[in-house]
Amino acid sequence: MAKVNENYLQLPGSYLFSEIGRRVEKFKSEHPDAAIIRMGIGDVTRPLAPAVVEAMRAAVAEMGAEKTFRGYGPEQGYRFLIEKIVEHDYRPRGVELGLDEVFVSDGAKCDTANIQELFGLDNRIAVTDPVYPVYVDSNVMAGRAGKLTPDGLFDRLVYLPCVRENGLKPRLPDRPVDLIYLCFPNNPTGMALTKAELKPWVDYARANRAIILYDSAYEAFIQDPEIPHSIYEVDGAKDVAVEFRSYSKTAGFTGTRCAYTVVPRSVLAYDSAGKPVELNRLWLRRQTTKFNGVSYPVQAAAAATYTPEGKRETAEVIRYYMTNAKLIREGLQALGYEVFGGVNAPYIWLSTPGGAKSWDFFDRLLREVQIVGTPGAGFGPNGEGYFRLTAFGSRENTEIAMERMKRFSRNG
Amino acid sequence: MAKVNENYLQLPGSYLFSEIGRRVEKFKSEHPDAAIIRMGIGDVTRPLAPAVVEAMRAAVAEMGAEKTFRGYGPEQGYRFLIEKIVEHDYRPRGVELGLDEVFVSDGAKCDTANIQELFGLDNRIAVTDPVYPVYVDSNVMAGRAGKLTPDGLFDRLVYLPCVRENGLKPRLPDRPVDLIYLCFPNNPTGMALTKAELKPWVDYARANRAIILYDSAYEAFIQDPEIPHSIYEVDGAKDVAVEFRSYSKTAGFTGTRCAYTVVPRSVLAYDSAGKPVELNRLWLRRQTTKFNGVSYPVQAAAAATYTPEGKRETAEVIRYYMTNAKLIREGLQALGYEVFGGVNAPYIWLSTPGGAKSWDFFDRLLREVQIVGTPGAGFGPNGEGYFRLTAFGSRENTEIAMERMKRFSRNG
Repeated sequence: MAKVNENYLQLPGSYLFSEIGRRVEKFKSEHPDAAIIRMGIGDVTRPLAPAVVEAMRAAVAEMGAEKTFRGYGPEQGYRFLIEKIVEHDYRPRGVELGLDEVFVSDGAKCDTANIQELFGLDNRIAVTDPVYPVYVDSNVMAGRAGKLTPDGLFDRLVYLPCVRENGLKPRLPDRPVDLIYLCFPNNPTGMALTKAELKPWVDYARANRAIILYDSAYEAFIQDPEIPHSIYEVDGAKDVAVEFRSYSKTAGFTGTRCAYTVVPRSVLAYDSAGKPVELNRLWLRRQTTKFNGVSYPVQAAAAATYTPEGKRETAEVIRYYMTNAKLIREGLQALGYEVFGGVNAPYIWLSTPGGAKSWDFFDRLLREVQIVGTPGAGFGPNGEGYFRLTAFGSRENTEIAMERMKRFSRNG
Repeated sequence: MAKVNENYLQLPGSYLFSEIGRRVEKFKSEHPDAAIIRMGIGDVTRPLAPAVVEAMRAAVAEMGAEKTFRGYGPEQGYRFLIEKIVEHDYRPRGVELGLDEVFVSDGAKCDTANIQELFGLDNRIAVTDPVYPVYVDSNVMAGRAGKLTPDGLFDRLVYLPCVRENGLKPRLPDRPVDLIYLCFPNNPTGMALTKAELKPWVDYARANRAIILYDSAYEAFIQDPEIPHSIYEVDGAKDVAVEFRSYSKTAGFTGTRCAYTVVPRSVLAYDSAGKPVELNRLWLRRQTTKFNGVSYPVQAAAAATYTPEGKRETAEVIRYYMTNAKLIREGLQALGYEVFGGVNAPYIWLSTPGGAKSWDFFDRLLREVQIVGTPGAGFGPNGEGYFRLTAFGSRENTEIAMERMKRFSRNG
């Protein structure tokens, strides 16, 4: 008899964005003419940059000709792309990486979800609260999270609250942990950490032989020169951190699918006898066994983001979204909202008026002004009373949304 | 302290195809002018069909325009592709599937590797021997395989030998098993099963509430009308089988990356209280949590294989490879080799002359006539003494390879 992985049955009913989708569909079916503005799921709206489209088009043509056709590529990604990553994303920041330390993939979501496989079930995991749900759910599925308690927390996870009292910046764990998921600029709060603020985390990991799983999918949105784009800009991080990056938000690849993960050779995990094992070797084994590389035209497209035109065009799109972020942030502040983020990140995290429940605020916003956001509670108990808006819409929709928010505020 | 998943440390040194790559690179560095013919890894060489290239090109252009740009698609795949799969791959064979029973992905390798996550660690797994290594390795990584014994077998797996004595067709397990991996047309042996031969497996699974994980990645190569293309052509299979398909070999997508998996709503696994759980719901949860869908232009390309031109063009390529298969098969038979497969599959499985060890034969073939094949031993202990050649080369190389084999045979 086939037995199910019972850890799956521990998962709460549905993934956050599926629930949002369900509620929006219901509203639409009842109000077919409503002009809904979507600021919920963090999905981009600007088209791919011309340099990217051209590179992808050329690569597709190559796939149609006998002489230039490509079959299986290396599971870890093509050298032409990895070289550009090392040269453009890291070297200018003083970080040197070997070509075998970068693994191209089809998404940071996949990689952050899969990385936990390399670790034993007895590791103690720390996550922020609120948190990107994938870090938690992937550990629940594997059986590392324990039982779901009535307060919505898993009893074997160590939660690091990001709340008003600490300026939404997590404090070091008060108990020993082995793996720490950090995401900065943060999804969902939009907050970023300076080098000085990141340093204690690296020191903690080094002192405790812990590993930091650092999601920097939003680094391209950083405006402040004090904020590091990579955790490896912090001294000593290369021995204790894995870093996840994506072209999804940087270059509008949410529907095109390309990302990468850096696993330095110097990052070690330990077997039960205390013998160190290179994490890089395990990830290589995982990827070669369970993954078959990213589509060649997609990798060619990603490589084009590093050409002078590609850089210029993608930077322009980032500026476009960050102008939206400023409009949302300042618009909400003018209406008296308490607002976080939106400065070094495309996310604006606001306190719901009067401390309303996140999902109630979601429903009211949808019903009264047809704006879809993401309820903070969907990111964890400490997200309750907060709400996330994204800057990824068109300028026109962003401006309309802010007009609607004025109306919403007048409604009281 | 971060603890490693010690199951990974159970894995034999390197993935089969990495080891082949290493040996070939070594030979090349010592003989830089050698004209090596690669018939080892099952990788295609014909370019994408014109209809596919045109559809992909058009989709890339859409991604570059504001009005037609697409961000995140459904993790399960676009409806436009799933509809075509249901209509063209299944309905003509009398199999009706719901749109929510088909999950588009970036590879059958990924899906066959990931499916085991849905099951508890206490399931007893059956695999054929020889076997596609991913089924075994993914279960080793999860901790379901037990210990590697000196004979190269894992002590908790149930191996189903495919040997000369049973015509390379596995017999039903002699002990209870819960999950059964079957791959037909088979990689590596090239053998196929008729409906009558598959029926006892379906009956076994139904009687024992087991689940068959059926890899039909090579169904497009079937020539014999008696051979089913889908396990669902067998009565009752929809209650007990998951089926994996891929565009890799069917349409030359090894470097383009698209596949799909069918998980019927009626397939059940059980919790420890014996309560049934729909596997479909769990796979949906896994994919929405750990995967972000296939690149839109790639899905558009896959959909183009179902247009009249797409069908004609891809069928032409299949015929091309199957002509190669015939040349290899008949060429080897004329030289006195014992040969299996190559009739309903692009793989030719041959006994090494004089019962030579597979890796010795590999080295000799590479050294003497610069042909790269795959040592049967790489697929399991019962692959020892066998060798796999693929029909995926160009006609010219296939013909040259057969000339070289004549020379090799004369060398004795």
